[in-house]
Amino acid sequence: MFKQNYHSSLLQSAVDELASLPGVGRKSALRFALHLLKQPKENVEKFGRSIINMREAVLYCSNCNMISDTLLCKVCSDLKRDHSLVCVVESIRDVLSIENTLLYNGLYHVLGGIISPMDGIGPSDLSINQLIKRVEEGSVTEVFLALSTTMEGETTAYYLYKLLNRFSIKISTIARGVGFGDELEFTDEVTLGRSIQNRQPFVPLKQ
Amino acid sequence: MFKQNYHSSLLQSAVDELASLPGVGRKSALRFALHLLKQPKENVEKFGRSIINMREAVLYCSNCNMISDTLLCKVCSDLKRDHSLVCVVESIRDVLSIENTLLYNGLYHVLGGIISPMDGIGPSDLSINQLIKRVEEGSVTEVFLALSTTMEGETTAYYLYKLLNRFSIKISTIARGVGFGDELEFTDEVTLGRSIQNRQPFVPLKQ
Repeated sequence: MFKQNYHSSLLQSAVDELASLPGVGRKSALRFALHLLKQPKENVEKFGRSIINMREAVLYCSNCNMISDTLLCKVCSDLKRDHSLVCVVESIRDVLSIENTLLYNGLYHVLGGIISPMDGIGPSDLSINQLIKRVEEGSVTEVFLALSTTMEGETTAYYLYKLLNRFSIKISTIARGVGFGDELEFTDEVTLGRSIQNRQPFVPLKQ
Repeated sequence: MFKQNYHSSLLQSAVDELASLPGVGRKSALRFALHLLKQPKENVEKFGRSIINMREAVLYCSNCNMISDTLLCKVCSDLKRDHSLVCVVESIRDVLSIENTLLYNGLYHVLGGIISPMDGIGPSDLSINQLIKRVEEGSVTEVFLALSTTMEGETTAYYLYKLLNRFSIKISTIARGVGFGDELEFTDEVTLGRSIQNRQPFVPLKQ
């Protein structure tokens, strides 16, 4: 690849680092670096420090593995939430997405990935044993698998189902169907087929 | 605006900082932060440090204001380059773009902006006096104005022309015309009109 000369080794290494961010090319990285160069020193110091601090001092909840300021996260230590319901997700980001809906009141379990032999990720790389232990403790009555509808997601869900099936708990998964705002014409056959098989009672909007 | 709860004040402040980069929204900033969280501590330390270091220790060439590792930049201290030709540009980025063409062999002068009354930037905010001083020293025979073809760029070019006209030097500007790969049909009237007025001798590609 063509190696740009940045005229300054300091600029060069800042661009190199910024270009390591996901989806950021060298052009955007240069734009970021030149933007930072124009900011007051204190602001740039704060910028760099906040990132270093986050990585140094971050905590993960000892119960659900969610990112947290405390040993037990806000969700797990909230007595108003339903501690008998555990939603299993792949990542921290999924917890944030589900929390954004304001429609879930149970706890979480962050797996830290999904089973993906192609990427060399097996069940032992995920926090599956920890999940089983939580169920063994006895207070969980439902495990809600909220994994991606990809091959890897389905494989992981099936693997967890086989492990959890021996407990007398409910195992549920997120509803699959045609998304809001989607047109039937452009919906793939699998989604459309499943949403016909799993058709639901019609509920008028005004009730 | 809807304020997302990130479950961790460390993640929160890192996302806040990353979202201050140009063109980066909170969704991308979160993606960057979660990516950095997965990296080894040393790498993230290096990431943050390289940005802080750049801002702390960066030098600007005392002659042309270009970013530099030394008091006099690589271009200004290169005796093989034409020291009688000075290309005036708005920013560091423009120098990098022109250097990438490998077709310019003179020196530069980085103005640090363009005259833009709308943004409150007047001639005194730019390194115009420094440019005049360089010309007064006597070794410059041509000033090449490579500014944007915007209203502000044209205004700045005209302002500089009025100041430089009293010296017996050549004042040039970048050629305007239809870009390579552009179709005449979609070229605006001003560009097309000028490229007709300034038509050039036809040079066949194979010579």
